Amino acid sequence: MPPSPFPHPSQHKPNPNLTQKHAHARTQISVFSPMAAARWAIAIHGGAGVDPNLPEHKQEEAKRVLARCLQLGADALRAGGRAVDVAELVVRELETDPFFNSGRGSALTRRGTVEMEASIMDGRGRRCGAVSGVSTVKNPVSLARLVMEKSPHSYLAFDGAEEFAREQGVEVVDNSYFITEDNVGMLKLAKEANSILFDYRIPLGGAETCSAQAAENGMVMNGLPISIYAPETVGCAVVDSTGGTAAATSTGGLMNKMTGRIGDSPLIGSGTYACNACAVSCTGEGEAIIRSTLARDVAAVMEYRGAGLQEAVDYCVKERLDEGFAGVIAVSGDGEVAYGFNCTGMFRGCATEDGFMEVGIWE
Amino acid sequence: MPPSPFPHPSQHKPNPNLTQKHAHARTQISVFSPMAAARWAIAIHGGAGVDPNLPEHKQEEAKRVLARCLQLGADALRAGGRAVDVAELVVRELETDPFFNSGRGSALTRRGTVEMEASIMDGRGRRCGAVSGVSTVKNPVSLARLVMEKSPHSYLAFDGAEEFAREQGVEVVDNSYFITEDNVGMLKLAKEANSILFDYRIPLGGAETCSAQAAENGMVMNGLPISIYAPETVGCAVVDSTGGTAAATSTGGLMNKMTGRIGDSPLIGSGTYACNACAVSCTGEGEAIIRSTLARDVAAVMEYRGAGLQEAVDYCVKERLDEGFAGVIAVSGDGEVAYGFNCTGMFRGCATEDGFMEVGIWE
Repeated sequence: MPPSPFPHPSQHKPNPNLTQKHAHARTQISVFSPMAAARWAIAIHGGAGVDPNLPEHKQEEAKRVLARCLQLGADALRAGGRAVDVAELVVRELETDPFFNSGRGSALTRRGTVEMEASIMDGRGRRCGAVSGVSTVKNPVSLARLVMEKSPHSYLAFDGAEEFAREQGVEVVDNSYFITEDNVGMLKLAKEANSILFDYRIPLGGAETCSAQAAENGMVMNGLPISIYAPETVGCAVVDSTGGTAAATSTGGLMNKMTGRIGDSPLIGSGTYACNACAVSCTGEGEAIIRSTLARDVAAVMEYRGAGLQEAVDYCVKERLDEGFAGVIAVSGDGEVAYGFNCTGMFRGCATEDGFMEVGIWE
Repeated sequence: MPPSPFPHPSQHKPNPNLTQKHAHARTQISVFSPMAAARWAIAIHGGAGVDPNLPEHKQEEAKRVLARCLQLGADALRAGGRAVDVAELVVRELETDPFFNSGRGSALTRRGTVEMEASIMDGRGRRCGAVSGVSTVKNPVSLARLVMEKSPHSYLAFDGAEEFAREQGVEVVDNSYFITEDNVGMLKLAKEANSILFDYRIPLGGAETCSAQAAENGMVMNGLPISIYAPETVGCAVVDSTGGTAAATSTGGLMNKMTGRIGDSPLIGSGTYACNACAVSCTGEGEAIIRSTLARDVAAVMEYRGAGLQEAVDYCVKERLDEGFAGVIAVSGDGEVAYGFNCTGMFRGCATEDGFMEVGIWE
C-alpha cells in the first residue's frame, strides 16, 4: 500500500496572512537569512494546468505517484542526502513512472517521436547542467547532471547530447520505450483537433468541443494558437540539512510540438533555478515562463527585495506571468516551502524536517 | 572611407562618479522611470576577452566594422525605426561581416562545422525568439525573430529550426559559406594545442605556450579546461524614440566546441534580455553567464532595487560573475547607455540621440 498522501494533516497550519488559497508556506515574511539553522525540505510537482474534470481515479493515481516520490526524497534527506543528489533521485523516479510527461510517458512531437529535456542546478556555486532533444536516454535529468559535472559546457542538445550520453555510458533505450499507448492516442486526437486541450490526457469531447473550449478560454501560446497544451512536466526543489539547495526539472514538452522546440524546463532561470536563497522549479506554458524568467525572478525578488519565499512566489505568479499559465514550487535555504499557480490546479507535494507532508492538486 | 570611430569625441563626458574606467553611462544614479522623455540610444558589442597583444591593424579593422554597424543603427533610429527592427538590422550586419564570431566567420565545432545560435527580445510585452544549432541560415538573428513572430514557440533548435527556416523561406546557404580560412587554421591549432587561447584568432605561441598561459591564467570553463575560448559573439541593445527597447545576440559559440553545445547567447535572461527598464546583451564565457542569468540580473537590479543602469551593470559584473569572464552592453528605457566587463577588453560601441558616438576595445 502506498503511503497516505496526507500522513501528518494535523501539522498543516497555513499562515492566516496568506492571501492565496493555494499558498502553503508556513512562514510568510522572512528576509532571506542563509545562516539560519538548516532544516531540510522538499517540494515536487507533476505539472500545472490540470483539467478540472480529471476523473477521480486519475487524481488518486497522481497523488500516489507524488506521495511515493516525495517519500523517497524525504527518506534520502532524513538520511543526510545532499540536495543535488536528492533532486536528481526524485526526478529520476518521476521520469521513470509513465504517469507524468517526462521520461517514459513523455508527450510526442508532431512526428510521433519523443524529444525530452531536463536541467539541474546546485545552489552552492550555482553550478548547472541541461539537455534538450534527448531521444534515447532513460533519465534525462541524470544526463543534465553529467553535463554539469563531466563536460566543459552547461547545456548540450540533440545529437551532441546523445553523443555525450554514449561517451558517459548512461543507460539508453529505444525511443519507443518512452512512447505510451495513451500518448499515441492523444497525439492522434491532437492532430485531429488541431487545437488546445487543457489536459491532453482527458479530452472533453471531439475536435469541435476542444476548439470551442480553447477559443473560450483564450488559450494561446506566444500569441498564436497551439495544438495541444500538455502541462505535466515534473520538478523538484530541495534544501538539505546543511542548507544546500538544488532544483531539477524534466519534461517531454508539448504534445504535438514542432520538432526542435525548446521549452522552459532546460533553461536555467526560466524553468529551474537554485542559489543560497532558494531553489525553484516551474511548470506550465514554457513560452510564458521563458518571457518571465520565472524561476530566477522568485530568487531575485528574495535577493534584491528582501522578500520571503511565499511572498516572492506570489509576486512572481501574479505580476510576472502577465500572459500565460504556470505554476511554481520552491524551498528556501532555511527550510520553508511555497507553491503558487495561476491556473486550475497543479500536481504537487511537499515534506519538511518536522514531519509535515502533503500532496495536492487543486487550490 | 568608413566613418570615423570617434565622430564626436568632444561630447564624451564620462561621469566623474563612475568607479570603473570602462563605464560610459552619462547618468549614473537614476531610479527607473519609464515615463521619462524618450531619447534613442544604441550599444553594440563584438565580444569580450580581447587578446592584449591583438595587432594594431586588427584593432583598426574591428573598430571600422563596429563603427559601420553602429552608424547603420543610429541612422535607422534617427529615421524613427523601432527598437526591435534596429536590433535585428544591426546584428544581421555583424553576422554578415566575417570579422566577428557570428554568421559568416563563426567559430567551428570540433567536427569543423558551424552551429550558430541567436536570440532577440522586444521589451514591449517581453516577447522573444531564439534559435540554436542553425547550420545553413544566413542570418540566425532573423530566424530568431521569425520564431518570435511566426511560430507558437519561443525557441527552436537544430533540425527543427532548419525545417522552420525552410517553411519561412529565409535565405539559406551551404554550411561552407560560414567557414573562413582563418577559422579552419585556428581550429587546427586549437586541436593541436588542446588548451585555451585567449583570443582564438591570435595565438601567442605553439601548444606548449598556450597550455602554460591557460594554466597561468586559470582559464577554465565550468570548472574544466576547454580547448578554445572564442569570445567574439555579437550583440545589440536599443531604445528607440518612443521608449521601446530591444536586444539581440548572435554567435558561432566556442572554437572546437562539442557539437550540440548551447551557450548563453540564445538564452533569454542569460545572453539577452529586454523589458521596459532596459535592454541588455552579454558576451564572454557562456557557462558563467548562464549561471549568473546575467542579462536578466541587470534588469532585475534596476526593477527590484531601483538602481540606475550603470550601477546595475557594475553590480552584476562585479558581484554576479563570481567565476568567469564576461562583458555587458545595455541601454535604459530613457536613453542611457552602459558597458561593463571584467576582462582585458570588449569590442563595443554606442551612439545616442544627442550625437555622441564612440567605439572602443580596452578599458
